[in-house]
Amino acid sequence: MTSKEKINSLRAKMASENLDAVLIPLTDPHQSEYIGAAWKALEWYSGFSGSAGNMIVTQHFAGLWTDSRYFLQAEDQLAESGIELMKLKKAHAPEHLKWMADNLPAENSVGFDFRLISIAQFKQMRTLFSDKGILIADTKIAFDAWSTRPPLSSEPIEDHPVKFAGKSRKEKLSKIRAQLKNKQSDYQLLSALDEIAWTFNLRGNDVKFNPVFLSYALIGHYESKLFVQKDKLSEDLIKTLEADGITVYPYKAVDIVLDDLPHEAKILVDPSSISAWLTQQVPLACELFKDMSIIRQLKSVKNEVEISHIRNVMVKDGVALVKLYMWLEKNLPSGMVTEVEVGKKLDAFRSQQEGYRGESFAAIAGYQGHGAIVHYRATPSTDVTLTPNGIFLLDSGGQYVDGTTDITRTIALGEPTKEEKKHYTLVLKGHIALATCVFPEGTKGFQLEAMARRPLWSAFRNYGHGTGHGVGFFLNVHEGPQSFGTGRTAHPASGLVPGMLTSNEPGYYETGVYGIRIENLILTVNAGESTYGNFLKFESVTLFPIDTSLIELSLLDHEEITWLNDYHSKVFELLSPRLDNAENEWLKSKTKPVFLA
Amino acid sequence: MTSKEKINSLRAKMASENLDAVLIPLTDPHQSEYIGAAWKALEWYSGFSGSAGNMIVTQHFAGLWTDSRYFLQAEDQLAESGIELMKLKKAHAPEHLKWMADNLPAENSVGFDFRLISIAQFKQMRTLFSDKGILIADTKIAFDAWSTRPPLSSEPIEDHPVKFAGKSRKEKLSKIRAQLKNKQSDYQLLSALDEIAWTFNLRGNDVKFNPVFLSYALIGHYESKLFVQKDKLSEDLIKTLEADGITVYPYKAVDIVLDDLPHEAKILVDPSSISAWLTQQVPLACELFKDMSIIRQLKSVKNEVEISHIRNVMVKDGVALVKLYMWLEKNLPSGMVTEVEVGKKLDAFRSQQEGYRGESFAAIAGYQGHGAIVHYRATPSTDVTLTPNGIFLLDSGGQYVDGTTDITRTIALGEPTKEEKKHYTLVLKGHIALATCVFPEGTKGFQLEAMARRPLWSAFRNYGHGTGHGVGFFLNVHEGPQSFGTGRTAHPASGLVPGMLTSNEPGYYETGVYGIRIENLILTVNAGESTYGNFLKFESVTLFPIDTSLIELSLLDHEEITWLNDYHSKVFELLSPRLDNAENEWLKSKTKPVFLA
Repeated sequence: MTSKEKINSLRAKMASENLDAVLIPLTDPHQSEYIGAAWKALEWYSGFSGSAGNMIVTQHFAGLWTDSRYFLQAEDQLAESGIELMKLKKAHAPEHLKWMADNLPAENSVGFDFRLISIAQFKQMRTLFSDKGILIADTKIAFDAWSTRPPLSSEPIEDHPVKFAGKSRKEKLSKIRAQLKNKQSDYQLLSALDEIAWTFNLRGNDVKFNPVFLSYALIGHYESKLFVQKDKLSEDLIKTLEADGITVYPYKAVDIVLDDLPHEAKILVDPSSISAWLTQQVPLACELFKDMSIIRQLKSVKNEVEISHIRNVMVKDGVALVKLYMWLEKNLPSGMVTEVEVGKKLDAFRSQQEGYRGESFAAIAGYQGHGAIVHYRATPSTDVTLTPNGIFLLDSGGQYVDGTTDITRTIALGEPTKEEKKHYTLVLKGHIALATCVFPEGTKGFQLEAMARRPLWSAFRNYGHGTGHGVGFFLNVHEGPQSFGTGRTAHPASGLVPGMLTSNEPGYYETGVYGIRIENLILTVNAGESTYGNFLKFESVTLFPIDTSLIELSLLDHEEITWLNDYHSKVFELLSPRLDNAENEWLKSKTKPVFLA
Repeated sequence: MTSKEKINSLRAKMASENLDAVLIPLTDPHQSEYIGAAWKALEWYSGFSGSAGNMIVTQHFAGLWTDSRYFLQAEDQLAESGIELMKLKKAHAPEHLKWMADNLPAENSVGFDFRLISIAQFKQMRTLFSDKGILIADTKIAFDAWSTRPPLSSEPIEDHPVKFAGKSRKEKLSKIRAQLKNKQSDYQLLSALDEIAWTFNLRGNDVKFNPVFLSYALIGHYESKLFVQKDKLSEDLIKTLEADGITVYPYKAVDIVLDDLPHEAKILVDPSSISAWLTQQVPLACELFKDMSIIRQLKSVKNEVEISHIRNVMVKDGVALVKLYMWLEKNLPSGMVTEVEVGKKLDAFRSQQEGYRGESFAAIAGYQGHGAIVHYRATPSTDVTLTPNGIFLLDSGGQYVDGTTDITRTIALGEPTKEEKKHYTLVLKGHIALATCVFPEGTKGFQLEAMARRPLWSAFRNYGHGTGHGVGFFLNVHEGPQSFGTGRTAHPASGLVPGMLTSNEPGYYETGVYGIRIENLILTVNAGESTYGNFLKFESVTLFPIDTSLIELSLLDHEEITWLNDYHSKVFELLSPRLDNAENEWLKSKTKPVFLA
């Protein structure tokens, strides 16, 4: 079937359901960043394979909204579809909702699956639509008309043992309950998959890159209910869960069970992750209390056991990277090294490390101009061969049973230009400025973020992405609530707390020429106490050399040089015991101290 | 009458009006920071003369909530009053509302003057009270029972000529109307006194330190109404206003005139400044649109004419300060220089400058331990004599017809200790870090503020106030919407725009020993453009030397030294033509370049 045929079959169904428009978002019922095949209706109808989009179909119009990352790709993939590409002026902005409010006549009905919209977005939509008299209807029509929809994933769920998690399910549940009590609430209703995986010490494989499983959960003071396709759990695991006071229900029974909630129960829901559909399953006699999920905050603060695993996983990841970059240097002259090959090889080297379970996201291997495309992903059609010239950016990460990594390094393959060195050094100065911050407890990421931009700003340069995101523990590589951003986010910003793991990744991009990014994960740790309270600082836990051949040393001051040399000596000290002689020699040369110009 | 007698007379009235509690705030109907004598009911009942407080009276209880600045003073002043001092845990927090919600039984009635509460606070109160079934009533009971209440101020209003304002009333009104149109609104209703003074190019004298006058205003597309006691305006000025399309109504007629607003009119109100009472005067058939006032933003961006006056006023203020500090140095050995004397003398030196109209706030002259009290005000009972030892902090400002100043300098009167020099230098490093920022247009103050704290944070030190506030033009020394804070404010934070004038005032306070603060006003100006957009920077417009005898030079880097020497050479260059020989020699020595240690 062509896109046109698929859309026509949808239009026929729309007519019979009295719908004037259908909205097809690209998400799942859990507002996940990465979604399983069964939720990609948008891709099936349109042929568009990007990771962000919203499609709207009426009897006379079909349009797909996506952001600038995907304009070229979408133009290409939508060419024969009859679907208009609607270019978002601002990524993630609800411009498609605005379009409907502006273009649909009053009394028109818009149908979409209420599971695919968070209550925060739902509220936004209702405000926009109610002014215009546009109606909305909950429907699965886009899935019903998808003739070849794959079934939901049935990948098995595994136990995430306490030796990695640090805290047992029971300990976590009792912490959650203490906070429920503080908030005078009876239940926390959960839909975010990483929060459920964290709470129950379980890991799955329903979504690429994220070790999570499709599920809902309801945690009360005396009961915990996990909603999951039962055949994903072994009988032993079900028994273990039951012994811990957790009852397992079918994934699809969540609405029936919620319907039995006691009247006047106060239920905590996070408006950023709970869907409109799910809240509607809660009896009207209950009270919904909208607040950041308790688990979002608890999960972000890594415990001592997790932290010691994180330090260890960084060694494994560093060793894999040493092997990768040595292989790259050795094979570069052969003319056989391409962006795609580097990604495969890195995955292979990581696989040699204990506990590796796969990439934590699709590696970004961007040579020269490709490095300037912030979300670039090399494919056979875009792939290029690396030569001993220019700059190569590699942003990648691994999922290990004992932690999640995310690292970016930018290296010169030939003799860098003066300008490349200048920009690389400005990025490095920003990276160091953030890495060396000391700040009082309670400080928020947006108060510190500009430190990383200041050196670039002074040269009238900047970068178009945030400076850092939270990172899970053998969980999603992007998590909240903390981040290094500009403070203009929908989520409430959270203060930095010891144990939070966040990326530090300033960059600089010269469109069509090269991209620069230097990323370490930094752990928030205690720095010291005074009459002014408790002060925190960061420990850079990622372990891999920063290319000194790209540094313009005259731009660094004494403290920056000291930080760099100290970091390199730590990298060498921690990685060298796990390397052979040749690797050791290589690493020694890459971590050689530099001196003030 | 004693406080007890006054409160008893209030209680008698409460009984006859069926009120169980009365709330007496310390503000005026315009939510002003400084208020006229007629609004200080709280002071009359309690004897407490601090600038911030809320009082609650029931038949069996009377309490006064204030913040830590005033604990000692309030304890003293409330001693015989029968009024309990309720110490605020957090300044400005609505803990008194919480107290009522927790302590008053359901069905109790709380009376207060709805003019004295912003709609933002009113909403907060209603949320707290409605849960508990507490009722509220609009009443002037606290003023009615105030037997000796002074009349409202009748000080004359003067024209603020275009040669100072830069834009005529008509130009300002047409700018406001263009923005009203953008916001699809019919009227802007104004109650903030500085916004009204700015809009109509008028200045008054109803409030100490602020050249404003009691008034309301309503600006529509075809009419402008100014509500003000008519006898404050000369007949000529009334005619001038009328010629500019502005109709003058009595101050007390605002409710009657608002009642005539056309139905369905959309009226813009700023929830931070419009009172609950005022919004209730708008017919229900109108639509209230809550948003930051258009004028708040327009006023904050100084025009070219204002900017050239600001530069000139800084010269005048600098000259007065040279005379003051020379006088201080000369007379210090005599043992006759006290904190109070310094304040008086400074006012006298400023009076010698053209266009001086008085202080822009009560000068803070804090010697040794007094310098550590952030809002210290020397009075005859606290006054101390300065001796050739220790540190002296002086924070002061002037109102001139051509601009408003605000400057803090901290000087050593003797040989400073190593620790004093270290802390002074850390404050200076923070001051310079903020002063030298380059940043893209749209950046908000809270993104840059931590730059000023970083050097202190690194030494586990901090200060308990914001780093900077907007400053008016011959208007309030504190204005919005921009500021350098932590981002945790009730007002929406606004991005920095060229023409904004803001203070840069990091500090450090060693309780009981000394206080350090270094404050300049910094003007946001264009820095340059690139493909990354427009970049901004700051120009330090305040002109007076920074005491180099307190600097530990080994803690400064090359760029900081350069900034300091450049700043000092500018100070000398701009002030010296206005100084006599002796003054010139003094200033030359105070602005001598320093060198890297």
